Formats: sequence, C-alpha cells, structure tokens
Amino acid sequence: MIHEGYSYELEMKVRDYECDIQGIVNNSCYQNYLEHARHEFLIANNVSFAELHNRGIDAVVARIEMAFKTPLRPGDLFIVKLKVLKEGPKYVFHQAIFRKSDMKLSLKAKVDTAVLINGKLAASLPEFDSLLVHNVN
Amino acid sequence: MIHEGYSYELEMKVRDYECDIQGIVNNSCYQNYLEHARHEFLIANNVSFAELHNRGIDAVVARIEMAFKTPLRPGDLFIVKLKVLKEGPKYVFHQAIFRKSDMKLSLKAKVDTAVLINGKLAASLPEFDSLLVHNVN
Amino acid sequence: MIHEGYSYELEMKVRDYECDIQGIVNNSCYQNYLEHARHEFLIANNVSFAELHNRGIDAVVARIEMAFKTPLRPGDLFIVKLKVLKEGPKYVFHQAIFRKSDMKLSLKAKVDTAVLINGKLAASLPEFDSLLVHNVN
Amino acid sequence: MIHEGYSYELEMKVRDYECDIQGIVNNSCYQNYLEHARHEFLIANNVSFAELHNRGIDAVVARIEMAFKTPLRPGDLFIVKLKVLKEGPKYVFHQAIFRKSDMKLSLKAKVDTAVLINGKLAASLPEFDSLLVHNVN
Repeated sequence: MIHEGYSYELEMKVRDYECDIQGIVNNSCYQNYLEHARHEFLIANNVSFAELHNRGIDAVVARIEMAFKTPLRPGDLFIVKLKVLKEGPKYVFHQAIFRKSDMKLSLKAKVDTAVLINGKLAASLPEFDSLLVHNVN
Repeated sequence: MIHEGYSYELEMKVRDYECDIQGIVNNSCYQNYLEHARHEFLIANNVSFAELHNRGIDAVVARIEMAFKTPLRPGDLFIVKLKVLKEGPKYVFHQAIFRKSDMKLSLKAKVDTAVLINGKLAASLPEFDSLLVHNVN
Repeated sequence: MIHEGYSYELEMKVRDYECDIQGIVNNSCYQNYLEHARHEFLIANNVSFAELHNRGIDAVVARIEMAFKTPLRPGDLFIVKLKVLKEGPKYVFHQAIFRKSDMKLSLKAKVDTAVLINGKLAASLPEFDSLLVHNVN
Repeated sequence: MIHEGYSYELEMKVRDYECDIQGIVNNSCYQNYLEHARHEFLIANNVSFAELHNRGIDAVVARIEMAFKTPLRPGDLFIVKLKVLKEGPKYVFHQAIFRKSDMKLSLKAKVDTAVLINGKLAASLPEFDSLLVHNVN
C-alpha cells in the first residue's frame, strides 16, 4: 500500500561511501537516489530509455528542486516514493524520501522532465501519459 | 573581472568519470561542482567550517534549485560563479556554471543555507554577513 | 548456499549513474561495491566500526588488487562474495563479483586490511579472528 | 622537472565531497584520480580515445594494484605522476600520488591495460608505443 497518492516506491539502504565528513549522506547522493528510483519506476512500467532513444526520443531533466529535511546516516534504510504529473509539456516527478525506521520525511523533490523528439520539445508522449498519477484512481 | 555581480568564480574541468552513458556530465555531479565552489569561496574568505563547527556553528543546505541548460561534456573547461544574498535568516547562494569555450550558460542554481548555532536556527552570522554581495559595490 | 568457500554474499544491482561513457560500470564503482559488501558483512557479524573506533581500534585498507573480467552493465544484478584469511598481521578479504544472470565472474579482488590499535599495527583482533574462513568448516 | 623517471604529472586538489566519515579521501576516489591523470596524459599526447574507438581500437584496464600509504585530507593539494612500461602485450601504467605540502607518498599504483582491436587482444599499438617511458631518456 502506497499512501499519499504516490504510484511507486523503492526501498534502498545508505552505503557508507555515500556519507561525508559530517557523518551523513552527502547532498549530491540524494540526486542519485532520486534518479535511480525514476529509472526503476520506468523499467517496472516497461518504458525503455534505450528503445525510446533508438526512435529519436529522449527524456531530459530540465529542473530540480530539493528540500532537505532529515539527513540519512550510515546503515539507514529508506523509501523513495514518486508520482508523475503533467504540467504543460512537462512531465513532473514528485518524489519524497522517507527514513524507514520512523517514516520521517528526509527529502522532498520536484523534478521537471521534458521530452525531446529528434531534439525538439514534444507536447506529450503516449508511453509517459500512461504513467500519470490520475491513472491510479 | 567577474560580470553580472558575481563575487567569486572558480575554473574547473570535466573529468571523464563524471560523465554517464549519455556521454554528458551526470546531473548529480553539478551538485558536487556547486558545493566545491562554495567551499573554495569560503576558504578564500578565511571562513573555516571546522573552526565554526568547534564553536557549535553549522551551516546546512536547506534547499536547492537547479535549472539545467547546456550539458557539459568530457574535456570541457567551465567556470562556476557565485554570489551570496540574505533572505530572512537564510544565506542564499546564487550560482551559475558557464562552459568556458563560449561562456554559454550550463546551469543556474539557487542554494538556500541556514546557520545553526547549537542546533537552533540563527538569524545571522557575522562571518557570513561579510560575504554578502552588497559588499562588492 | 555459498560455493567456493566464500563465507558471505550480498546481492546488488547496477545503478545507471554508476555507468560511464562506455555504457559499462566505471572501474572505481567496483571498489564501492567491494567496500559496501565488507561493511555489510561486518554488520551481519555484529562488528561495529564505530564501537571499535571508540576503543581506539581502526581497520584500514593497506592494499587492493583487482582483476577486471566481465564488465557489468545497466540493470545487471550481481552477487558480491567474500571470505577473510589471515596472512601475518593482515586480515585479507578475498572478494569476487558474479553477474547474477549467468554467474559469470565479473571481478576478482584481494583487499589487505591492517588493524591499528591507538595508531600502532596490531598482530590480531579477536573480533576479526572469529570471522576467518576456517570457521565455516 | 619530473623526478624518478615519471613522464607526466598532474596537480589536483581534494574536494570535500570526496572525503568520507573518517575525514579522509574515500579509497575509491584514488581510482578516479588515477584514471583522470591517465586520460589527461593521453590528451596531452594527442591520443584520442574517441578517435581510436572509431577505428575499432579500445584500451581497457585489466588489473589494478594500489598500495595506500598516507591518506589525503580536505583541502590537500596533490600530484599524480605516471609512466608507461610495456610488459608482453600489456601497457602498464606506474602511478604515484604525492601530497604536495611535503611530497610524502600517498599512494602507489600499477594499472595493467590491454589493447583490443575489434575485440581481440593486440600485441601493440603505435600510438601507445610512442608514450613508453624509454622515450624519456
């Protein structure tokens, strides 16, 4: 059961090498976590970047906003959740990371992606439209 | 000479291992570049994280916004520029990355940092106030 | 069932951001995989780096040898196996990474670690002796 | 002037995000440093991976040995030195990293590379032969 309208979640674990001098996960690693969850989400929905790319279609990240709430630490298990909304031509991933032990919010992010077909901004892509969150209803 | 009101700049070069399957710098590496430039800026201004920490003072990133414009590629030289503004209790770093060959904008970022003194949000910090961009005028 | 005398194994999955321009996992990431597996092995055996450190005991990597056999690719599942042998004062981790789909050898490594007690090389450490591979018999 | 028979050197600086919980550069980052120095060396000698690749020629790392001597810390400047020797069909990079402040040895490495032409091990490559260390004499 995935609450709050998220349509996908992935459990991961902090690796020690991702932590920095302050003893917490380095800020840039959250971006890795978010990207990995998006890619796993697409794979789980049979959307293949490689296959799209071969047809001249590329999804690119145009903008990222991240709010850092509670730092993750060595050994922490965490859950990355996501849902996709459409805003104009953009497919916007709303993502959140929760520390598993107490489900405390660690990070909230909004990732705007654009679809380029042969290098030109496309208004939409059927493969992505089927992933939009209203389909969960 | 640093244009557009930036108060610091750092030249860096893309390293091949920072590039991903698409042949361009992975999005998360820009956060590394931005962080490294902020830390070098502070060191250049004789602000020591370690010395602040020993006095119970910590600066933490609360929020990051990044707009991805032109991807950097293997071998690219680039310039990270920054200035610091004050917004309420926050010290906000405005950062931009330019590809050196043509000074094309690669990335624009806004990084909100908060100062914690003994774990509590502080309204300001003299060491940081002296870095604010109005001092450049 | 863990064959070839290995005493621990951990399943992991390649993340796209770990792959470089050649479309395969960057060589340096294998070191991350190996380190993560060693740390998980120690945690599984209730050996805590933090607790050892507080008693003035540190385990450090003195030397690494890695032979690269078959590159891992995006989406690959893989198994990191390990066993620990004693060679003089050193605790030597023998590690191997196998691609899960066909159990083909991806990498073989030998990681020499030394135990420092208050900064001086120690001949042995009871917590580590209990992990040696002959205990598996 | 490059002593000890090394034929190339590159100065770099530790970035804070490369350091881990122990406050020192994470072991896997040294592999990044070594790789970056090798690639810069090749570029400085007008050897282009991309151009070789287009001709069906690839240089791959077959084996790495690293001995960790003195850990680098935040802010440390360091010099990566290298020379290339031929051992049978292999081109072997001997690399060392020195802390700049006192030229103390931080790491010594031996990196065996093989040349594949259309996927088959080649006995030699003229572009690489011209880089061998005996040319320095």
